[in-house]
Amino acid sequence: MADERAAQAFSERLAAAQRRAGSTLCIGLDVDPRRLPDGLSRDRTGVERFLRGLIEATADLVCAYKPNLAFFEALGEDGIPLLRAALRVVPAGILTIGDGKRGDIDTTAERSATALFEVLEFDAATINPYQGADSVEPYLRDPSRGGFVLCKSSNPGSADFQELDCAFEGDRVPLFEVVARRAQSWNTRGNVGLVVGATFPAQLARVRSIAPELPILIPGVGAQGGDAAQAVRLGAASDGTGAVVNVSRQVLQASSGIDWRDAARREALALRDTMRAALTGAAR
Amino acid sequence: MADERAAQAFSERLAAAQRRAGSTLCIGLDVDPRRLPDGLSRDRTGVERFLRGLIEATADLVCAYKPNLAFFEALGEDGIPLLRAALRVVPAGILTIGDGKRGDIDTTAERSATALFEVLEFDAATINPYQGADSVEPYLRDPSRGGFVLCKSSNPGSADFQELDCAFEGDRVPLFEVVARRAQSWNTRGNVGLVVGATFPAQLARVRSIAPELPILIPGVGAQGGDAAQAVRLGAASDGTGAVVNVSRQVLQASSGIDWRDAARREALALRDTMRAALTGAAR
Repeated sequence: MADERAAQAFSERLAAAQRRAGSTLCIGLDVDPRRLPDGLSRDRTGVERFLRGLIEATADLVCAYKPNLAFFEALGEDGIPLLRAALRVVPAGILTIGDGKRGDIDTTAERSATALFEVLEFDAATINPYQGADSVEPYLRDPSRGGFVLCKSSNPGSADFQELDCAFEGDRVPLFEVVARRAQSWNTRGNVGLVVGATFPAQLARVRSIAPELPILIPGVGAQGGDAAQAVRLGAASDGTGAVVNVSRQVLQASSGIDWRDAARREALALRDTMRAALTGAAR
Repeated sequence: MADERAAQAFSERLAAAQRRAGSTLCIGLDVDPRRLPDGLSRDRTGVERFLRGLIEATADLVCAYKPNLAFFEALGEDGIPLLRAALRVVPAGILTIGDGKRGDIDTTAERSATALFEVLEFDAATINPYQGADSVEPYLRDPSRGGFVLCKSSNPGSADFQELDCAFEGDRVPLFEVVARRAQSWNTRGNVGLVVGATFPAQLARVRSIAPELPILIPGVGAQGGDAAQAVRLGAASDGTGAVVNVSRQVLQASSGIDWRDAARREALALRDTMRAALTGAAR
């Protein structure tokens, strides 16, 4: 596996994972002990059983899992062991994205990339670009590992800065467009991606036109109001891959009863099929 | 201690800590097992002994310690226990700043704030504002805990986005100024601060004029080239407090020999005194 990974740029690994799974669905692992379904203890054992059951029930339906690091950090000493236990259950060929929106000066980013890619062995990570190119570069050194650069986030407050009208290369464009253009220029190794929320379809379409081939991680579907079919239609590259549509709560909290495994699988299956149909309907 | 903390806004706690210590120095705990001095093992025991020794040798000279979370994350399962061990050595009245530049949508930010303020019990945290007001708010709910909003970072690449010329409230200002103005407006509970690198003195002066009373965490002194005396002169509020000048490598790597405790103390003492003199010389 290590050799196969090393031989491919991240964008190729992602496209292969999506083709193999026949799915553009990513499930976000935002695990919260207070919200575990019936039959599971609200402790480390319950969290571990939930993560294992969820992954086992959905692994044939997804191209990736995205652990949300803050949810594991809130578990204190148990966070890293639980994260590792979850990652061990993910079958080979399905990618893992460490979602922590990290970003800092070079020496710090180098340690952070070590934590994400060497210690936890994620295939990709989300990166906050506010500190500039030299803060992002340490995450992009290994071509086989992907860096999804936060561009236009799914929350209402994303307009506060990301929509500011900026002077850039003779144009006037919103800040998120500057980020998309710069990220495109950083993609010398085939491993840069972007994060754009499904809750902003016009901006998603715009980013796809600026960066025709970059993978786009698309949060905001489900509980946040974004539409999966629209997200994958607007977000996919010309070959139908490259849109990684993340869903968290809609799958994780599909049922609070003892049928939670079946309910999660049902939601994941419906999402996968909705997105498949949307891509076919878009005649790509 | 809990009652005293709860009764004061973070900015008052910080001013009190600076007056009590007679110091504006913050030491950054960027601990790297590969760079431990002679006589310490390159493992968990060595890291723990180094952190304890460093804090014991400098605690009477600082107003705060700033653990750099990425350096602990790179230690895997050992990270949280080592961080907790270090925090336990910090005497009461000296503040702790969890430096992770976090920022995400509300549900995630809420978990992250829980990790920083409830699980690890930091007094303050650094926050990346790119996702907007609603992503910052969860870190500001407890008035006694501070949120230092990343404004102008100390690295060369900080110009890539932070210096973009933006339309804002009828003006045209660089992005970092928009952040400073918005952060000022978020300070309804007395617990908002800013991060501005010492490597950009003109921008530091500008931010201090935009936000006359907000605490400013100032990295970039020492190895990165910033000047401590200039940083505290430009960064202090009118009462002489409010500039928290962080130094990491200059103190942590003061000596690679067995005299590392003495060398770290000597550097910290010199920095404290240099900044004291600068504040007096500025006739505040």
